[in-house]
Amino acid sequence: MNEVKKIVVTGGAGFIGSNLVDALLVQGHEVHVIDNFSTGRREFLNSGAELHEVDLCDESVDLTSVFQGSQEVYHLAANADVRFGMTDTRRDINQNVIATLRVAQACATAGVEDVIFSSTGAVYGDSVEHPTPETAQFPIQTSLYGMSKTAAEGILSTFAANEIFRVSAFRFVSVLGHRYMHGHAIDFVRQLHQDPEALTVLGDGTQRKSYMDVSDCIRALLTLRGKETFEVFNLGASDYCTVRDSVAWITEAMGVEPKVSYGEEKRGWVGDNPFTWLDVSKAAEHGWAAGKSIPDSVKGTVAWLLENTWALGIQDLRK
Amino acid sequence: MNEVKKIVVTGGAGFIGSNLVDALLVQGHEVHVIDNFSTGRREFLNSGAELHEVDLCDESVDLTSVFQGSQEVYHLAANADVRFGMTDTRRDINQNVIATLRVAQACATAGVEDVIFSSTGAVYGDSVEHPTPETAQFPIQTSLYGMSKTAAEGILSTFAANEIFRVSAFRFVSVLGHRYMHGHAIDFVRQLHQDPEALTVLGDGTQRKSYMDVSDCIRALLTLRGKETFEVFNLGASDYCTVRDSVAWITEAMGVEPKVSYGEEKRGWVGDNPFTWLDVSKAAEHGWAAGKSIPDSVKGTVAWLLENTWALGIQDLRK
Repeated sequence: MNEVKKIVVTGGAGFIGSNLVDALLVQGHEVHVIDNFSTGRREFLNSGAELHEVDLCDESVDLTSVFQGSQEVYHLAANADVRFGMTDTRRDINQNVIATLRVAQACATAGVEDVIFSSTGAVYGDSVEHPTPETAQFPIQTSLYGMSKTAAEGILSTFAANEIFRVSAFRFVSVLGHRYMHGHAIDFVRQLHQDPEALTVLGDGTQRKSYMDVSDCIRALLTLRGKETFEVFNLGASDYCTVRDSVAWITEAMGVEPKVSYGEEKRGWVGDNPFTWLDVSKAAEHGWAAGKSIPDSVKGTVAWLLENTWALGIQDLRK
Repeated sequence: MNEVKKIVVTGGAGFIGSNLVDALLVQGHEVHVIDNFSTGRREFLNSGAELHEVDLCDESVDLTSVFQGSQEVYHLAANADVRFGMTDTRRDINQNVIATLRVAQACATAGVEDVIFSSTGAVYGDSVEHPTPETAQFPIQTSLYGMSKTAAEGILSTFAANEIFRVSAFRFVSVLGHRYMHGHAIDFVRQLHQDPEALTVLGDGTQRKSYMDVSDCIRALLTLRGKETFEVFNLGASDYCTVRDSVAWITEAMGVEPKVSYGEEKRGWVGDNPFTWLDVSKAAEHGWAAGKSIPDSVKGTVAWLLENTWALGIQDLRK
């Protein structure tokens, strides 16, 4: 039996956060969740966790008491959608930059030792190196989302440089699987659930993307640590697929044969990266590798969505 | 004679901004200055410019009217001090991130074509590559200042990726010269002006730093442009000196022989980079090189400070 710890998970009612909370509770820890349910779901929140229903950006709330006595904090609360950054330009700064600063300060005051952070492969902008390593060249940001996650990493690495706490930052590819609620797969399944005959795809379908199953992601968050005060790890499958591959797996899993309309652009939207593939050899050297293949993860995601069709009815609030 | 343009300079009463405004007025342009005099000086503001006394972070102010009809905007307003970030953790985010977003949005609404931005070599964190090129590896930030300028670049590059305006971002080393008001040289001159017998230096004096004269900086801001929608240029001298070299030049210029007390740390403060030296070959390929040597610039700075001893009496408000 491991030592029982008080562990705080921000965004603990979200897709990745709630899966993480479940895993931490199985390990016997005392788990506290901070969530404001802006995108998190009450259905996902494990009743074994203690909930603090708080908006991290609310300046009137002192977060320190929640973090007091906690050695580890998983900071997952964020705006997680790279699209729509330019229609609500303050969202990424508020939810990803200022929220991270407030969490960092509360962790500092409370004496937290380890902060585990969900970053993103979007920090690489339009990478010129594939697969992209953690030491890729200085990125040029193409989305406010990528900018904001880079800034959040920079806030945490500054606290780490000041030896206030250790940081493990994980740059994810898109995550699929159990409780998946936003991204291309749900968009496709939602469309096909309404009309099995037609599917409209943003971009020309040649976009190359790497994915990761949430089960692999949780295993990394729980186990991957380095020696430095600030460590960053890429996480993703060792390979990639095209959007056209994904369309084929999803339609096959759903047993439909729609007419697929592709766009003409190489990107799905401005700020979309036409090629996302991360070099995960650093994580591999530390003993981690994705266990689930991309097609298996896509098919598992479709199965979960078809068992939970209420999820298809949830309007995407981020638009 | 060049075409006369309406040009806006944010931070146009500051050290670099006011020198830039003078140069733009000499070229015959209609120059508008936005400054809130938090660190800018009324003494520096050219009376030929139109002043808009505005805090860029003030949400109640609509900035668009100032930018209307302007093709070029020089966005120089910022917190420019890398120290004290951890004592007032919101300053860098407010003055460098949110202010830049507000300027970018106002430029977008007003149809500005070119935004010229003062970034910093601090965006490279503790670089492992010397001299550090624009394509250096993904930096780990060690200061909230470096984080905030990286984020500001990311905001502007996102607008550029959306083809809203072109951006030329300049990553400076520390700038010296006419109207220099903060940094190591004024700290040293202030101390020696009070007591020519004693000088206390932060850090052990082995820190290696590259500098640039403000005259060279202004020439770069005015003339260096690239072909891409978002272009970044390092700016600095082609070489570097140690803090001990600088102490020698300053004491020589002042004709004093103090007892110098060095600290024991390799850095002057947490977040200080012990070695700052930028690769300026990209700027050189575009026809720019620093014209003034580091010792000449240091000596010129001392001469200006000794002619303007009122500057030594200005308390450093950033502490």
